[in-house]
Amino acid sequence: MPTTVRAYAATAADQPLTPTTIERRDVGPRDVRIEIRFAGICHSDIHTARAEWGGVPYPLVVGHEMAGVVAEVGAEVTRFAVGDRVGVGVMVDSCRECDACRKGLEQYCHVGMTQAYGSVDRDGSVTQGGYAQQVVVTEDFVLRIPDALDLDVAAPLLCAGITTYSPLRHWGAGPGTKVAVVGLGGLGHMAVRLAHAMGAEVTVLSQSLKKQEDGLRLGADHYRATSDPETFTELAGTFDLILNTVSAELDLGSYLSLLAVDGTMVALGAPPEALPVQVFSLIPARRSLAGSTIGSIAETQEMLDFCAEHGIGAQIEVVAADQVNEAWERVLASDVRYRFVIDTSTLV
Amino acid sequence: MPTTVRAYAATAADQPLTPTTIERRDVGPRDVRIEIRFAGICHSDIHTARAEWGGVPYPLVVGHEMAGVVAEVGAEVTRFAVGDRVGVGVMVDSCRECDACRKGLEQYCHVGMTQAYGSVDRDGSVTQGGYAQQVVVTEDFVLRIPDALDLDVAAPLLCAGITTYSPLRHWGAGPGTKVAVVGLGGLGHMAVRLAHAMGAEVTVLSQSLKKQEDGLRLGADHYRATSDPETFTELAGTFDLILNTVSAELDLGSYLSLLAVDGTMVALGAPPEALPVQVFSLIPARRSLAGSTIGSIAETQEMLDFCAEHGIGAQIEVVAADQVNEAWERVLASDVRYRFVIDTSTLV
Repeated sequence: MPTTVRAYAATAADQPLTPTTIERRDVGPRDVRIEIRFAGICHSDIHTARAEWGGVPYPLVVGHEMAGVVAEVGAEVTRFAVGDRVGVGVMVDSCRECDACRKGLEQYCHVGMTQAYGSVDRDGSVTQGGYAQQVVVTEDFVLRIPDALDLDVAAPLLCAGITTYSPLRHWGAGPGTKVAVVGLGGLGHMAVRLAHAMGAEVTVLSQSLKKQEDGLRLGADHYRATSDPETFTELAGTFDLILNTVSAELDLGSYLSLLAVDGTMVALGAPPEALPVQVFSLIPARRSLAGSTIGSIAETQEMLDFCAEHGIGAQIEVVAADQVNEAWERVLASDVRYRFVIDTSTLV
Repeated sequence: MPTTVRAYAATAADQPLTPTTIERRDVGPRDVRIEIRFAGICHSDIHTARAEWGGVPYPLVVGHEMAGVVAEVGAEVTRFAVGDRVGVGVMVDSCRECDACRKGLEQYCHVGMTQAYGSVDRDGSVTQGGYAQQVVVTEDFVLRIPDALDLDVAAPLLCAGITTYSPLRHWGAGPGTKVAVVGLGGLGHMAVRLAHAMGAEVTVLSQSLKKQEDGLRLGADHYRATSDPETFTELAGTFDLILNTVSAELDLGSYLSLLAVDGTMVALGAPPEALPVQVFSLIPARRSLAGSTIGSIAETQEMLDFCAEHGIGAQIEVVAADQVNEAWERVLASDVRYRFVIDTSTLV
């Protein structure tokens, strides 16, 4: 029997989120029912709900940074028990059969991963996300949240954390490497903490110096304003890795010129428009422009364990469910340090 | 005492090359004087001579694919003796002190490598290239041409060969990998032969099927026309590596969509204009767009030895010096299979 739970849903691109109820499927043999305690607010939630990334099957509950406690497990579930502290991120399933899935890169599933919200699930229903009291997910896509991490600061790790951790690992951030993080927002502040914990020398590249104190406190070694042209002349050829956490249009050529030989600039977000790239800025130093999205389930667990070991949680501001529309407006105004998290006990 | 040698020089952007004489410096303690036997014609020669890539210190002798025989060595030269078969490519010196040089990546020298023509040399003179009877080069930038390679087919290896060999090696072409080569010209035909010899599955992506027979004979497993839209739908997500040997403007998004997860498209040439890139085409498969130029001296030697071992030379058409202007016109018309080589004994 499906369970009816309270949630906040988008009903149209131009309407505020409104309280509603949704049904969660009965727990199958390999499913885990999770009582969501905290749900992070990601900029992607807003893009999606407002139909900026394509058509939306309204009503839709967004949210893909869920932290909570196991409330029920299916008969064949082996890895989780009632009461376990767990998380669910962007991905709740994948085809499990393609090359990418077989290689443990299910985030790049050729069929397309099943996302926490707005995807068609195996039973034909549309997935509903984390701004809700509960979620039911197959155990293979459930993460364990170590005891050392509070659930509220752990929630944003499931998207902002892994989205920055994965490229840092893939492109070898560590002692002796120089990493730049473009933008100090939800993703950026995690990138700084993680890259610092990995041992890299970290530079924040932000439009202004407004958040400099925060950036240095979070672990940045340097903080430079991109509004200052000297930043680009002085830092030319410096970085082994640049993580671009900014979805706005950038002058890519200027940023690519900051890369050292064999350096890579990785886009984690992007504007829908094509950006002009001077290929000649890549050739004389064997530079790369790349893209990356979240990480595999195994890597997400590795990230959570790494965060527990290094005492890294997100910097958050907890809000009640009825503050979510206001919180969205503040996200759009970049007025959040650095992630809103919904206390789902307020879904009444 | 400098030596006067015959050469062909560009005197202005809009003038044909004309016979002239130039002076080669006296052989210093670590220098090697080389009697050039064959000089390849590279498209870069034309771009440079016609001032399409910036200002030109006319008169200028171009050519950076030289194969010949050692005629004289300096007192401290240890690695070469008179009569040795040798080659000189794009690079005749570098700073030898920067990070890149110390890592053995002197082609990415931070100061800028000293190119075979049009660069300012250590003595303040402007370097003059290979369309000439002789050249004097410091021994560290002289390559040994194995006996198994004829000098005429070896000459183009010094640019077209290493420019394709280096990215194939760097990005791991080999058994089990799928490599696409965009364009079957001077660089492209070398890329096909080398990738095939490395054990990769090779696909040529060419505008039409006109050169299909050649491509398959050179070692391609598949040959597809990019004028056929089905090429892009059928091959989506296929390639681990795409080498773009075409300097013309391409729709990068279409080509990037052909990359598999973690695949890389490498630009070896580029139009001066910026190309629009959909960063969203990179993110969902962790794709990269990169650039690469020639290879280090050590890697160039490795390439020559590899070519000797596998019996790989360039496909050439030998021309006399007085045919060079006509040859250039045919290069511009893509009417060469696949490299012109000047027989420098005709410089009379």
